[in-house]
Amino acid sequence: MTQETNEILANLPLRNDLIGETPYGAPQLDVPVCLNVNENPYEPNPDVCATIARRVGEIAHTLNRYPDREHVALRQAFADYLAQESGAHLSVDQLWGANGSNEIMLQLFQAFGGPGRTALGCDPTYSMYPEYARDTFTGWKLAHRNADFTLDVDAAIEAIQEIKPSMVILTSPNNPTGTPLPTADLERILDVCEHADVSGAAEGVHPIVVVDEAYIEFRNPGTPSAVTLIDRYANLAVSRTMSKAFAFAGARVGYLAASKGIIDCVRIVRMPYHLSAITQAAALAAFEHTDEQLSRVAHLRDIREQTAVWLATQTYQGQPLEVAASESNFLLFGGHFDKRERIFDELLNRGILIRVVGPDGWLRVCMGTDDEMAQFREALTQVLRIVERE
Amino acid sequence: MTQETNEILANLPLRNDLIGETPYGAPQLDVPVCLNVNENPYEPNPDVCATIARRVGEIAHTLNRYPDREHVALRQAFADYLAQESGAHLSVDQLWGANGSNEIMLQLFQAFGGPGRTALGCDPTYSMYPEYARDTFTGWKLAHRNADFTLDVDAAIEAIQEIKPSMVILTSPNNPTGTPLPTADLERILDVCEHADVSGAAEGVHPIVVVDEAYIEFRNPGTPSAVTLIDRYANLAVSRTMSKAFAFAGARVGYLAASKGIIDCVRIVRMPYHLSAITQAAALAAFEHTDEQLSRVAHLRDIREQTAVWLATQTYQGQPLEVAASESNFLLFGGHFDKRERIFDELLNRGILIRVVGPDGWLRVCMGTDDEMAQFREALTQVLRIVERE
Repeated sequence: MTQETNEILANLPLRNDLIGETPYGAPQLDVPVCLNVNENPYEPNPDVCATIARRVGEIAHTLNRYPDREHVALRQAFADYLAQESGAHLSVDQLWGANGSNEIMLQLFQAFGGPGRTALGCDPTYSMYPEYARDTFTGWKLAHRNADFTLDVDAAIEAIQEIKPSMVILTSPNNPTGTPLPTADLERILDVCEHADVSGAAEGVHPIVVVDEAYIEFRNPGTPSAVTLIDRYANLAVSRTMSKAFAFAGARVGYLAASKGIIDCVRIVRMPYHLSAITQAAALAAFEHTDEQLSRVAHLRDIREQTAVWLATQTYQGQPLEVAASESNFLLFGGHFDKRERIFDELLNRGILIRVVGPDGWLRVCMGTDDEMAQFREALTQVLRIVERE
Repeated sequence: MTQETNEILANLPLRNDLIGETPYGAPQLDVPVCLNVNENPYEPNPDVCATIARRVGEIAHTLNRYPDREHVALRQAFADYLAQESGAHLSVDQLWGANGSNEIMLQLFQAFGGPGRTALGCDPTYSMYPEYARDTFTGWKLAHRNADFTLDVDAAIEAIQEIKPSMVILTSPNNPTGTPLPTADLERILDVCEHADVSGAAEGVHPIVVVDEAYIEFRNPGTPSAVTLIDRYANLAVSRTMSKAFAFAGARVGYLAASKGIIDCVRIVRMPYHLSAITQAAALAAFEHTDEQLSRVAHLRDIREQTAVWLATQTYQGQPLEVAASESNFLLFGGHFDKRERIFDELLNRGILIRVVGPDGWLRVCMGTDDEMAQFREALTQVLRIVERE
């Protein structure tokens, strides 16, 4: 940065707590194998693309007008999808959409956070949560997970009672570890939160529990989703996204399933017309092809299992790699990498982009196509030998 | 609301200052003549629609991947558009896009507002500004406009020196009054702000001036846009939108022109991937047809002038209607309506939806097609006679 630019920045009234901060996000690099942001590696097929173009074309003549602020048709589509995917029977007023689950989470923090309020997460966990908190002036506290990254339920409950958060953020499966959240653990926390106090709020006000299910479609078959608990818990909010299993990251569609009361709170803070008519049409078009969009999920789950087995057979400095048990489309691996940045760089030199994230000593790789994973395995084998000798 | 719902809401940790608030937005009603939200009444023509569908179809196969977080191609298109529309020569790093100018404004408030900070507006003005302030815990103060709704520059400068805001929000043309902001007035305020203090900030930090130019394309020909001042003022941010003159409200594309320093501050608080690949493609498609999209602006300006003349010939309770001088696509009229809600309702009964907004005694109507305006004139003539006799 030039001296002149620094002077201009110094004159601007950027919030004091943002000075020196940088924009969030993994590097967007043009490399052959992108395994860094947990995307579904399979492109929408030509039929899906044609439907999207057709549906957008059908509404294009209305674009001089504002979109349906309540996006009712899309909320019904979310409900239909959850009925099919999770067996949950929810109504339109228990669903809400936004531009990615980022915006869903931000709206939740805007409604239920703020100065004097605290959100509680269970680390290691998704690195955007502290940004939502920062952007809404919400305190951010952590209850630590067990060494195997499973939730330490007792520690979480103790933290809820001590900190009195207004929001408890759970992640299922967790990112960047992939760890599933057993329903019994979630129910214990929901039961505690139904009676817990919230610091700074009136008596009788209890924390909401936000379950971030961005990767839930990759869970092992037969595992319930938290959306099946919504009718039992008015304080439960489940964040979902079309970005991951649904292979629709570029369209930026996240959604929230929760009690009508929670949805109504979010509606107070949403920007009017936050969801464009084009986004609504494109998401509805994609839902016409739900089966095709999800058709690779089972295969990606198989690739995850195979990759986990393979990683566990690899060594670094004479010790086998650790692999966190994952029900997602990514794996956290390593555990004792003393130079993880070097491993990342050497993989990148070979055209493989993964992610430096999670606790020290670990790296995260998301599942690509069979060919991409073969390239990853070959490159990692080379790189581990090179880096451990440095 | 049922008692049960009330109990659930009472248990939720909604921010204390949001309790009792309702979602912002004009009623979305299915009526023949919508003149309430300042849309361009002319649909995109079939060529434009076809290009939008084609461009979205072309990128649909990439939708499993995240979009370009920096939306560089679209920022270049904004720069090209401003060069054509306003004669401003800006670079990509002086431009920024978001989901509507709502999101642009929210990002500015997120970066430069917050607890302990104050934003200053000049009322009567746009009713969303206090919502951006509320959503970011920013104080919201007002300097009052002159009786004819022109900016009281001396009062604004006095307020800047007394309140020490971090943000000064000007609106050009102003909403809901339509009042233009002369460049000389803007320059006086920019000059003052270049040296003014900001409460709670370090010495040498000065307020930014945000000029909301949502309706600027409707100004009288020959009037400069504030974007032509960006190279002279590092503390100037100009918010623009494709929703109004550009007839693209349904696509939700707002943008910001400002110094690189201001853009860099906004980048810190933006959600990663806030702008979808589909939105980027659709906006680029619309910019392939800039001339067609803007082709009705001159006609809408003529309709505004004709409608203003006609309104001034109408009477209510024996007095001629006042009409605020407007350089936008809407008119604030009346001035002495003692029952403006009744006039609104009776117009609605006749299929004409306008807006109850602005100071007591006034109503706002936006410019429709010739046929729509004929219906509006006929209905208003009837309604004024009915309501004044009640």
